[in-house]
Amino acid sequence: MQNDRFLKACRREQVDCTPVWLMRQAGRYMAEYMEIRTKYDFLTMCKTPELATEVTLQPINRLGVDAAILFADILLPLEGMGINLAFAKNEGPVISNPVRRIQDVENIRILEAEEATPYVMEAIRMIRKELAGRAPLIGFSGAPFTIASYIIEGGGSKEYKNCKTMMFGAPEVWDALMEKISEVLLRYLKAQIKAGAQAVQMFDSWVGALSPDDYERYVLPYSRYVLSGLKDEGVPVIHFANNASAMLELVVRAGGDVIGIDWRINLDEAWRRIGYDRAVQGNLDPFTLFAPPRLIEEKVKRILEMAENRPGHIFNLGHGINKETPVENVMAMVEAVHKYSRR
Amino acid sequence: MQNDRFLKACRREQVDCTPVWLMRQAGRYMAEYMEIRTKYDFLTMCKTPELATEVTLQPINRLGVDAAILFADILLPLEGMGINLAFAKNEGPVISNPVRRIQDVENIRILEAEEATPYVMEAIRMIRKELAGRAPLIGFSGAPFTIASYIIEGGGSKEYKNCKTMMFGAPEVWDALMEKISEVLLRYLKAQIKAGAQAVQMFDSWVGALSPDDYERYVLPYSRYVLSGLKDEGVPVIHFANNASAMLELVVRAGGDVIGIDWRINLDEAWRRIGYDRAVQGNLDPFTLFAPPRLIEEKVKRILEMAENRPGHIFNLGHGINKETPVENVMAMVEAVHKYSRR
Repeated sequence: MQNDRFLKACRREQVDCTPVWLMRQAGRYMAEYMEIRTKYDFLTMCKTPELATEVTLQPINRLGVDAAILFADILLPLEGMGINLAFAKNEGPVISNPVRRIQDVENIRILEAEEATPYVMEAIRMIRKELAGRAPLIGFSGAPFTIASYIIEGGGSKEYKNCKTMMFGAPEVWDALMEKISEVLLRYLKAQIKAGAQAVQMFDSWVGALSPDDYERYVLPYSRYVLSGLKDEGVPVIHFANNASAMLELVVRAGGDVIGIDWRINLDEAWRRIGYDRAVQGNLDPFTLFAPPRLIEEKVKRILEMAENRPGHIFNLGHGINKETPVENVMAMVEAVHKYSRR
Repeated sequence: MQNDRFLKACRREQVDCTPVWLMRQAGRYMAEYMEIRTKYDFLTMCKTPELATEVTLQPINRLGVDAAILFADILLPLEGMGINLAFAKNEGPVISNPVRRIQDVENIRILEAEEATPYVMEAIRMIRKELAGRAPLIGFSGAPFTIASYIIEGGGSKEYKNCKTMMFGAPEVWDALMEKISEVLLRYLKAQIKAGAQAVQMFDSWVGALSPDDYERYVLPYSRYVLSGLKDEGVPVIHFANNASAMLELVVRAGGDVIGIDWRINLDEAWRRIGYDRAVQGNLDPFTLFAPPRLIEEKVKRILEMAENRPGHIFNLGHGINKETPVENVMAMVEAVHKYSRR
């Protein structure tokens, strides 16, 4: 491995400078990506290992980030479960058979991930080969709550009304669904690791819709099932629960070697609450990248100062990068992280 | 005043039981409201004191809540500022002349609130008369950031890209805009108090989009200007910053006799961080009201326990009530608050 900063930081080892990558770094803000995206639809790109490999590598070549993250979508495991997934133009994911009753849950299949999503595993093998040690490869999945929210609501949601109505009104249906989802996700991540992922991240993108009590009762046991099931796989596990900064202690209880932090909290306070026995990842507001480079640099420095050169900080955004972000600002950010954290 | 529980709790005085009201309590979940709403559009209802009075009183008559809140919209002051506000069907507010450059800011007018929004003041006088002391009347406004976000984005937003681009890239335009907005809001709330509002709440509905540093630099001084400008008006001031539970200390620094809490944090932890020298208001997840009444009751009890009978707790939702909420569940909630908090 020519660049092992990221993996070292995950294990809280000393590094030459702070590693950095960006959530959703293989994406529409890059001209190279758009060139491919105009020729193929999003799902085709996810399901064609050659295309997934090409776009996964683009940010490594262009930005100099310290890790590659598999190009994929958190909803890819749905099809194997018997849930119909489509991406409507400009509308995001649409599920034509949302899960609402116990019968729907009973109909969900649990396949082996190599059978359900062979193209993901093939992409991982291909990316590892192409990377040839230039940077480690991160695999990922959604977290049980986030996946459940799509499956129940039938797509994206603002308020999670159906989801909460099930939780509160039919907890036995909720638990049965979460059990099945957790099992699918654990197998999915294990298969990614077996295929060659050198770290994995579990994204709980929408769990910030819940109160701490509801998180603890309805979500934490299932997130913990997935995360603790990965303990013996030998790779670092990152747990990112977006908009959950007011209940970080519970997120930590669910597990993860590295805890992702959104931008709604200062990194020093977040790390103190998480505990220094975990690594942390974060936490620049993605829209800072619309600021002049001088201000981006200042804000990068501020986050590095809050990390106090403590081993175990991975620099990242506090959420996925926006598709209109100027790529030169992203490059300025990556450069600033390396420059101002040089030990 | 026949029911002064709410005002006493705002001043942290002993009460017979915990007062309760609901954000957006005069709204579409009530059949009485919909009966009027089908006859008039939303803005007409806001601008017709007789209609605003009627719907403001509906929850008092039906639910037995301990305070009335003026029926109005946080964007009503925009028209007097020279900003064109319309409500598109099912799309929320639309502003045809959003503010982006310094010239746009210079064109903003600062009128007296009685001149800009005479119908609001007339509604307050009429509501006070109709209430005849049965419950106190709360007036309200948006907070500077939330109002600025609409004015800059031209309507609602998910990501506040234009807003943040201005903050970061043209801070002099941002500051000039926030100065004008704060002045308008301070005058607006003072006029409401003069007209008869017995408490006021400032809603910072969208400020959760910001990092603590950006809140402190770009928002706090302006929120403080409004809140501290109300200190000598003799009525309690409630400050609600939604989705800001990870930076409550900064929200407190901006001011408010009562601090509103969303549902993303436990009330006991929130109050400890806010300090016991302030009253608190909250914090049931609005979607709990889709749960069976038995669970609603449990969750009400849990919040009351976290408040520990300490004087200064006003029960409320952690955000506005959803328009599909079953009204009988709302009534069960109000009853449970009174029943389980009886001293």
